[in-house]
Amino acid sequence: MAKVVVVYHSGYGHTQRMAQAVGEGAQAELVAIDADGNVPASAWDTLAAADAIILGSPTYMGTVSWQFKKFADASSKAWYTQAWKDKLFAGFTNSAAMNGDKGSTLTYLFTLAMQHGGLWVSQGIMPSSTKAAQRNDSNYLGSYAGAMAQSPADAGAADMLPGDLQTARDFGARVAQVAARFQR
Amino acid sequence: MAKVVVVYHSGYGHTQRMAQAVGEGAQAELVAIDADGNVPASAWDTLAAADAIILGSPTYMGTVSWQFKKFADASSKAWYTQAWKDKLFAGFTNSAAMNGDKGSTLTYLFTLAMQHGGLWVSQGIMPSSTKAAQRNDSNYLGSYAGAMAQSPADAGAADMLPGDLQTARDFGARVAQVAARFQR
Amino acid sequence: MAKVVVVYHSGYGHTQRMAQAVGEGAQAELVAIDADGNVPASAWDTLAAADAIILGSPTYMGTVSWQFKKFADASSKAWYTQAWKDKLFAGFTNSAAMNGDKGSTLTYLFTLAMQHGGLWVSQGIMPSSTKAAQRNDSNYLGSYAGAMAQSPADAGAADMLPGDLQTARDFGARVAQVAARFQR
Amino acid sequence: MAKVVVVYHSGYGHTQRMAQAVGEGAQAELVAIDADGNVPASAWDTLAAADAIILGSPTYMGTVSWQFKKFADASSKAWYTQAWKDKLFAGFTNSAAMNGDKGSTLTYLFTLAMQHGGLWVSQGIMPSSTKAAQRNDSNYLGSYAGAMAQSPADAGAADMLPGDLQTARDFGARVAQVAARFQR
Repeated sequence: MAKVVVVYHSGYGHTQRMAQAVGEGAQAELVAIDADGNVPASAWDTLAAADAIILGSPTYMGTVSWQFKKFADASSKAWYTQAWKDKLFAGFTNSAAMNGDKGSTLTYLFTLAMQHGGLWVSQGIMPSSTKAAQRNDSNYLGSYAGAMAQSPADAGAADMLPGDLQTARDFGARVAQVAARFQR
Repeated sequence: MAKVVVVYHSGYGHTQRMAQAVGEGAQAELVAIDADGNVPASAWDTLAAADAIILGSPTYMGTVSWQFKKFADASSKAWYTQAWKDKLFAGFTNSAAMNGDKGSTLTYLFTLAMQHGGLWVSQGIMPSSTKAAQRNDSNYLGSYAGAMAQSPADAGAADMLPGDLQTARDFGARVAQVAARFQR
Repeated sequence: MAKVVVVYHSGYGHTQRMAQAVGEGAQAELVAIDADGNVPASAWDTLAAADAIILGSPTYMGTVSWQFKKFADASSKAWYTQAWKDKLFAGFTNSAAMNGDKGSTLTYLFTLAMQHGGLWVSQGIMPSSTKAAQRNDSNYLGSYAGAMAQSPADAGAADMLPGDLQTARDFGARVAQVAARFQR
Repeated sequence: MAKVVVVYHSGYGHTQRMAQAVGEGAQAELVAIDADGNVPASAWDTLAAADAIILGSPTYMGTVSWQFKKFADASSKAWYTQAWKDKLFAGFTNSAAMNGDKGSTLTYLFTLAMQHGGLWVSQGIMPSSTKAAQRNDSNYLGSYAGAMAQSPADAGAADMLPGDLQTARDFGARVAQVAARFQR
């Protein structure tokens, strides 16, 4: 079976719940980036051993949190030797507004994966965008490059919507499926 | 008074309604790009005389329609002499999904304005993104770089939401205000 | 063996030479988008049968040419049924300036591939960026998301640099290699 | 006279030299973000009083450094009250490769400015991209959205090219000029 790792930062718990949902879908190991932007030393071995790395961050001020970026900057060591070349990558993000520049975050996660010489897996779930669409439909937010969740500015992690979490779970399952196919 | 021009393409009428709302807010002249990607010859003089140019397009397959792009490519004549340098620019788009890569379209419109040596005006309306937010609130879609409208895939132009159209109107008014200030 | 198709538009012959180099590297079939933005009807079958689709366009006014965009808009038929889901995609572009928003073009090609539910293959060639770097080195332009070539504004297609063409060839070979691995 | 502030992070001194050149051109006050991503408490007053804010960062792993991002995240306080609304913004970056995703950094700086409700000033200098172009020409790197400098991976800050620094100076002068016009 392909090894999938979810590496994420969460500021207030929303992105963590999303990471857990993605991880469930992908049967993945989770690596949390802490409040100082650090990961345990062992995380670099975990990432090196991964077939697929799923990157997750809240969208703060238009892109990933500084803690996630600190992790990305620290990954320059792997970049230098192209140690992650040809791994699969994918990404997800949460923010307060419907758009709120979540697309900018996913584009950045893609850019990071490209620098690592990776392959990027799309979300692969069609948007729910007819008149009959409901907020808890699969991919109601209409994302393509990765998974999105939206949590109102005054909503705690416990209030996250089941539709967004199910979308995250399905997205995780898809990445694992692609990883399995690619590994054969 | 500053002269504002809205130049837009609309495939099915939604972006046209949005252009009209933006135009009302900005008291602007409208220039329509036709189904073959052309504008009347006089449009180039209209654009040359503008203090501010507001660019509008539906989001099709992840960015502006090909008709809008044909107009953008034709604007290379103005680019070559930097005839539009220091004009104000702003942008808007409509698509079926909540996100649906509308951010990609606005980023492209910005990129075009940059090639023309322009100044870009943000939407300037804060997102409505609390638990109490309603679909017809101002900037419910949570955009910053320009105005967004969202129309379900099976909804005609007549079904466009009053909130999105009011956001478009307010956005037009803002661009006109900035243009007036810049012109003084 | 995996089937790779290069679909491209070229305005003045530069992108065509680049497409040929990519195609050589990938042992790919080439599909040209014509000056009106059309492809032969048979091209859609060719693309449907592809394991990997490599997208190429000049960068005009900050992104793909309108002719390429017309092709992208026509691909909405395949999008609607997600007929190209899980195919590999990759991209390349040529323009006159060192940067010249070539990155914007590659990001758009990625966005298009994401709408199709695809997987995106990075260029996978490290930049040549030390003091000793020469213009004809592999990936001298320092791209990651796809292949870039740069041709001065007053240089014909015959003047294209051997380094850029070799980079394109190597990039094509890489995509074919990933496609073969993914197909197994 | 309009008040221009340059706020920047520099890891190895290159972006600092660039910031100084931009600052000279703009007759601006400089605010340095330190190695921990912090600015002096007084910097927030300086920024609040600015007519134009020029944002500068190296490009690390595909976008701004984590230290710059920490500053951007801290600016959420100003964002919350839209305290920087209608200020002018502009941006610059340095990295090792010709492209090296410097465009991604400038697009992010733009995105940040948009969240603050700002107006973005283009670089406004045409690329030098004919066959006769020389490395030290103005805007040899072919940027539009902001100023770029390129410093080989093994080159110290002292080795920065005079052409890139002059481009940065001219860019600073342009932003100051636009700020003066806008302030009248």
